[in-house]
Amino acid sequence: MLKLYYAPGTCALAAHIALAETGTDYEGIALDFFSKEQLTPEFLKLNSKARVPVLVTDEGVLTETPAILAYIAQSYPDAQLASLDNPFEFARIQAFNNFLSSTVHVAHAHKLRGSRWADEPSSLEDMFRKVPENMSHLMKTLEDTMFVGPWVMGDSYTICDPYLYTIARWLKNDRVDVANFPKIEAHMKRMEARPAVQSILVHH
Amino acid sequence: MLKLYYAPGTCALAAHIALAETGTDYEGIALDFFSKEQLTPEFLKLNSKARVPVLVTDEGVLTETPAILAYIAQSYPDAQLASLDNPFEFARIQAFNNFLSSTVHVAHAHKLRGSRWADEPSSLEDMFRKVPENMSHLMKTLEDTMFVGPWVMGDSYTICDPYLYTIARWLKNDRVDVANFPKIEAHMKRMEARPAVQSILVHH
Repeated sequence: MLKLYYAPGTCALAAHIALAETGTDYEGIALDFFSKEQLTPEFLKLNSKARVPVLVTDEGVLTETPAILAYIAQSYPDAQLASLDNPFEFARIQAFNNFLSSTVHVAHAHKLRGSRWADEPSSLEDMFRKVPENMSHLMKTLEDTMFVGPWVMGDSYTICDPYLYTIARWLKNDRVDVANFPKIEAHMKRMEARPAVQSILVHH
Repeated sequence: MLKLYYAPGTCALAAHIALAETGTDYEGIALDFFSKEQLTPEFLKLNSKARVPVLVTDEGVLTETPAILAYIAQSYPDAQLASLDNPFEFARIQAFNNFLSSTVHVAHAHKLRGSRWADEPSSLEDMFRKVPENMSHLMKTLEDTMFVGPWVMGDSYTICDPYLYTIARWLKNDRVDVANFPKIEAHMKRMEARPAVQSILVHH
């Protein structure tokens, strides 16, 4: 049985929702980041990067949200979470999710994780101040040039949707009013009407 | 026919090598970033993010290196650039490439692109100073926990190899001595012995 290691409030929510959408049996294991459970020897053996999500499969361990989401979509084709027989459509989905992980999540991370990239308190404060501007700019890019609607890729719900939703939930604490981005705000409500999403939110 | 927009010195080298490995016909179009050709109206129409690589296919436009690499592997199965019939092995490849794009490339980008995340000159200098430490730490993580050898994923050359090679070429200017990472240094030499790589390096 699959095991998903996650922590509330993190990007692991995306993989958690995607698993729930498949209807498969899995075990969800919550880590408490406040007591630094991601730094225990047991967990570091699974993922030396000390991050979530981590998906333990019968074949081995997977990390990185876009890779885990693609694995879930390919392993449970009946759930129809991605175009699996068209490399171009599949790549469009990967491109969207990769933009979220390498650009949008990274912009957000400069709020509280600036010490990854700089040492001086004044630098971390500078990064913190810039987060609302960057996240607003990125949400506008997403809304104007990538989001098709009603779901990210158009009429079909895909693995892009739980990932966008996960990041949209961070906007309030990033000091960005999601109401400035009506398509993304409506998408959040659409997500929260899904039973799979509701079943997972109680754990986050 | 596929068109690849690239710029010398950028991560587009990875997709460029992967295309050459397939043996397919394609048109490579070099942008001059010094004269800001990525900001022309024509290019922004293709990719409003103003970045390379951009791959123009008969079905539409693709961006983001991990997505383009996966598209090339799936579209040219005879080139055997990824495990295509095993979702777990395919996800391992995506996880590696996603780590390069969302963590390693991002760490490198703090050398000259710090203004994406902070405004004060002192912050940008702080970020610049930290790049060798971060890139060294990440190369050690790659070498100790991810690189299998002789190729990234083991005996088979995959779309992970041109991407790792592309980033390893940045290390010198990042003030990191690749000789500290003997597996990665040997991998660079192994890459440079490939005819496809040699045929592309003349353009970068």
